[in-house]
Amino acid sequence: MRWHQTQLRLKPRSRGFHLVTQEIVSALPELGSFKIGMAHLFIQHTSASLAINENADPDVRGDMERWFNHAVPENARYFEHTTEGPDDMPAHLKATLVGAAVTIPIRDGRLALGTWQGVYLWEHRLTSHRRRVLVTIQG
Amino acid sequence: MRWHQTQLRLKPRSRGFHLVTQEIVSALPELGSFKIGMAHLFIQHTSASLAINENADPDVRGDMERWFNHAVPENARYFEHTTEGPDDMPAHLKATLVGAAVTIPIRDGRLALGTWQGVYLWEHRLTSHRRRVLVTIQG
Amino acid sequence: MRWHQTQLRLKPRSRGFHLVTQEIVSALPELGSFKIGMAHLFIQHTSASLAINENADPDVRGDMERWFNHAVPENARYFEHTTEGPDDMPAHLKATLVGAAVTIPIRDGRLALGTWQGVYLWEHRLTSHRRRVLVTIQG
Repeated sequence: MRWHQTQLRLKPRSRGFHLVTQEIVSALPELGSFKIGMAHLFIQHTSASLAINENADPDVRGDMERWFNHAVPENARYFEHTTEGPDDMPAHLKATLVGAAVTIPIRDGRLALGTWQGVYLWEHRLTSHRRRVLVTIQG
Repeated sequence: MRWHQTQLRLKPRSRGFHLVTQEIVSALPELGSFKIGMAHLFIQHTSASLAINENADPDVRGDMERWFNHAVPENARYFEHTTEGPDDMPAHLKATLVGAAVTIPIRDGRLALGTWQGVYLWEHRLTSHRRRVLVTIQG
Repeated sequence: MRWHQTQLRLKPRSRGFHLVTQEIVSALPELGSFKIGMAHLFIQHTSASLAINENADPDVRGDMERWFNHAVPENARYFEHTTEGPDDMPAHLKATLVGAAVTIPIRDGRLALGTWQGVYLWEHRLTSHRRRVLVTIQG
């Protein structure tokens, strides 16, 4: 049984869904030495999310962003938390809907994602940020 | 500290929410030997989800499906990812909203679910599939 | 490698989002002895949720509640599960959208939350309940 914990800083990205599987795996050479285990990726922010979804067609990520922007509109008449900009309260709502963490099983030194699965960073703010992800691996 | 990892293939099911607690527990006789631990269930697909919710009344599962179909409609005018059928992009959205994994504590050799909690497979596609679930137990 | 598992009973709270980070941490003096690890908080109910989000401005929690009540209305015409009150089926839906568990990394004896992150209890029912949370710590 071993543990490995490290904080990554992801490259800043514009608002929307971004595939970051390769950026994360490249920063975790330690993965290869775990035969069976778990990888926990935790974004330390309340206006960006991590998720797992389709890794192939960029249209999927565009449609995700469009649907969520439609479902969680800016400037809803009942919003009271408006001082940090119209994209701030929708960002917190999206973060609650999608979540701050993903947990992925490790098998034979690799993330055991399905064929079509990838790790998404979803940046909710209009301004790009270098998001911090705390990675904890055990196995 | 021990680890057990195994891939299950769930029985194919029609679109909707299905209670699969018993099917999963039956496939995991190893559970009984873990006094304290964690069970991680990870569906290796982007158009089906795992969730935890009410295990008693089938009306609840029907209403879940109806609300989500209402909230994430097929053929939204702004969808661009349409080549795989009208149920495909809603499937990816539902998968992001509900998630690919559930983590359940183990206590005294059993999943420590509350009285009314069960594990749901949510099949998002119209066509049934045999979904793969990678189970990782540690304790 | 050590495990610690304990069941907490949270103070009853009215419908809405409530910050419970301090109540949970105070009940876990064992946290301090884990250098690297994971804390898993699991609510054993289907009409309340745990989530992680902004810990500062109460307006954020009010807007969360308002948006979700707008998105998941009571008395939708297609609901069939209505015998337990108009707030019951929306409660199950919100529980599925937000989830029953949060997993938080431990670093140097503390929950490694970001500066603005806190743990939310989201009570979905109109009647207050003492919610059970099964906490599993390992490290």
